[in-house]
Amino acid sequence: MKQLRTFKDLTLTEIDYLLQKAEDPFMNQRSEKTVANLFFEPSTRTKYSFEMAEAQMGVNRLDFSAEASSLSKGESLYDTLRTFEAIGTDLLVIRHPKSRFYEELEGLNIPIINAGDGAGDHPTQSLLDLLTMKQEFGCLRGLHVVIAGDILHSRVANTNAWILKQFGARVSYTGPVEWMPSHVRTSEILTMDEAVSQADVMMMLRIQTERHGGTEQWTKESYHEQYGLTESREKEMDSRAIIMHPAPVNRGVELADKLVECPRSRIFKQMQNGVKVRKAVLSYLLETKGARNYEAIV
Amino acid sequence: MKQLRTFKDLTLTEIDYLLQKAEDPFMNQRSEKTVANLFFEPSTRTKYSFEMAEAQMGVNRLDFSAEASSLSKGESLYDTLRTFEAIGTDLLVIRHPKSRFYEELEGLNIPIINAGDGAGDHPTQSLLDLLTMKQEFGCLRGLHVVIAGDILHSRVANTNAWILKQFGARVSYTGPVEWMPSHVRTSEILTMDEAVSQADVMMMLRIQTERHGGTEQWTKESYHEQYGLTESREKEMDSRAIIMHPAPVNRGVELADKLVECPRSRIFKQMQNGVKVRKAVLSYLLETKGARNYEAIV
Amino acid sequence: MKQLRTFKDLTLTEIDYLLQKAEDPFMNQRSEKTVANLFFEPSTRTKYSFEMAEAQMGVNRLDFSAEASSLSKGESLYDTLRTFEAIGTDLLVIRHPKSRFYEELEGLNIPIINAGDGAGDHPTQSLLDLLTMKQEFGCLRGLHVVIAGDILHSRVANTNAWILKQFGARVSYTGPVEWMPSHVRTSEILTMDEAVSQADVMMMLRIQTERHGGTEQWTKESYHEQYGLTESREKEMDSRAIIMHPAPVNRGVELADKLVECPRSRIFKQMQNGVKVRKAVLSYLLETKGARNYEAIV
Repeated sequence: MKQLRTFKDLTLTEIDYLLQKAEDPFMNQRSEKTVANLFFEPSTRTKYSFEMAEAQMGVNRLDFSAEASSLSKGESLYDTLRTFEAIGTDLLVIRHPKSRFYEELEGLNIPIINAGDGAGDHPTQSLLDLLTMKQEFGCLRGLHVVIAGDILHSRVANTNAWILKQFGARVSYTGPVEWMPSHVRTSEILTMDEAVSQADVMMMLRIQTERHGGTEQWTKESYHEQYGLTESREKEMDSRAIIMHPAPVNRGVELADKLVECPRSRIFKQMQNGVKVRKAVLSYLLETKGARNYEAIV
Repeated sequence: MKQLRTFKDLTLTEIDYLLQKAEDPFMNQRSEKTVANLFFEPSTRTKYSFEMAEAQMGVNRLDFSAEASSLSKGESLYDTLRTFEAIGTDLLVIRHPKSRFYEELEGLNIPIINAGDGAGDHPTQSLLDLLTMKQEFGCLRGLHVVIAGDILHSRVANTNAWILKQFGARVSYTGPVEWMPSHVRTSEILTMDEAVSQADVMMMLRIQTERHGGTEQWTKESYHEQYGLTESREKEMDSRAIIMHPAPVNRGVELADKLVECPRSRIFKQMQNGVKVRKAVLSYLLETKGARNYEAIV
Repeated sequence: MKQLRTFKDLTLTEIDYLLQKAEDPFMNQRSEKTVANLFFEPSTRTKYSFEMAEAQMGVNRLDFSAEASSLSKGESLYDTLRTFEAIGTDLLVIRHPKSRFYEELEGLNIPIINAGDGAGDHPTQSLLDLLTMKQEFGCLRGLHVVIAGDILHSRVANTNAWILKQFGARVSYTGPVEWMPSHVRTSEILTMDEAVSQADVMMMLRIQTERHGGTEQWTKESYHEQYGLTESREKEMDSRAIIMHPAPVNRGVELADKLVECPRSRIFKQMQNGVKVRKAVLSYLLETKGARNYEAIV
């Protein structure tokens, strides 16, 4: 049986044959695209919904694992990604703990989808949130969306607020005053009780304890009581109003355990939509066709 | 080159285009099934034989890695698996250290294959054991199977004993008395010397030191001498008798090093059969057709 | 919904059905090959270029992760690989920290590609280096290649030197005298300044600090000044001369930061060639056809 343990396993003729075979145009024609998923932070929903989207699209996947890579030999993010470009990857999906990690990647010549950068952005999450609201209400104009909780550390809160306003929705906020970003005006802040009675969408956020300094002054119970969406508060919501949450949920903290799968929860619908929007984005960035001739109805 | 780093990379028209594309029926038609493999405990044989089975069947795979997931953010097993259901997974293969982990998963609406639950069950291992014996002897009725060693901590010993009796086989036990489950009757217990002279199948078990308290009173050598299948004991076995072991083998402890690949060992045949039975089970659970019209010959 | 949590989920009829289905020839026919990638040491380039090669060839991949395997239960390398053979893998790609790891694998009956063994060999790296030089110069005969730096710890330096001489190239060395292997003759050693003015190829090596005892007597800056390819030294190179490096590069140590992507750098071209030669080798070992009738022009 043929082996390749050392170069001694090959004759000069075989070496020459392999070098010619390596340049064979037939060997190097490709029909399928290849996407590399590089997650430098833990993720379940985003990671596996990208993988599912890619699987359903029939593109090849390379799943990068930071621990098993040359990062442990001190290789930079740029050099790591440049490697993926060099080996012929068509697109990079990247989650990274560093905000705006993509700014040091200007030299790359390959499409990147940001799957979450520190406390920065998470654009495909925003897209799936928009899709979920459009499915529910048809149109975003005039919708009242209340963003609730750990707004300061949320990758999507600010993006969602900005884009919702662009589409004509009204955005309010509720939660601890310490977690209100400086750009939020007092007139936009509601108490949780005001929020549930007025909102079409209660957009709950996960309390990101891993991004805090451990200086919280609440117990889980007292937070839930004061700022959480409790079972009794849910009863005050409008009959058509929905609950959203990017998950994972701290059950019993920002959201009552029983509300996670209640009739007005769209939490698992959001995950399902995550696969859909990621297929749309992957397809758009891999092909870059179709969008130009498209008549937008905004 | 098109990028998606922040929402600023998209115009409102593009966002609207992507949201419509996400709902495109053509984008969401699927022909292939997707299976997620979630191994919360180390595994080589079971994990990769499931992966091989799935690869040979042409189903898409999502390989879950606990370390890189939102489990590190405190997400529960239920919420993790509910996520896989939401993103469109068709079947879950799960190994978990907690016995009967599946009892907390009643709310899920997706087929699950238990690939080992703590000291509980491991049904596809039992199936491959049965297949190995049927290949060898044609029929299980009348066969004498001796289960040897760490019976108390074995996921498969009790299941195999129960199902073998259902199919008309005789089951005996041998090993340290501390590792005999309470339901084993004295008449069913043999010494190792009795066992080798009577058995059609010596079903060896791995000593699962990782599930013990470290209170063993044997050295490897003294265990091997008293309870192991030694080279000299193997010579006392019937000419047609076979040796089985679920592996990994503690070579020189429960089984002599040289017997692992001896002519009567079926250890690697068992692994080969593992791929076959897993394909059969995956196919059965993914399609649920064929079995109903089948004439059983039990 | 059908589940397989314990054997109690199956009737005897179903068990019998599954055992027959497992032997169904239709279920067990296979058209595609399956390759297992087993990396016991960190790797980015080699690991993902093998994965890319396999993806482009349309072969199934099993990606082994040491942490999640039965290695943690004490299973040997031989038994682990024998498992992959038993489940039907067609070829193993292995990187392992132990030099000549393959010597303990004589019992296996499956092709192995060595993807790096300790301080031993790395034959596909040598092939991609040769391909890169052939693309550049057409022929290796008469070429002057200078191998620079941490020669003693390099897997490819000695192989490359040996094979380059076989193909008629001249090989010289430059770097700290402590890192010169005993077989290097004084006449083959150049200073870095001599090297840059004479070489057609500056084959830089990575300083493998993880394989040293931490007894180096240089700072990064003093190493760069004395032994590194600095920006000013690059200016002394021949107009057609090229720079190679297996990467990851210690930027600013063996090679000036700005030279990594300079016009005469072939570092990312080498990575691209890595996919090509790995496809050629995989294809050659999986099929073992074509080479025999091939007219070599060495």
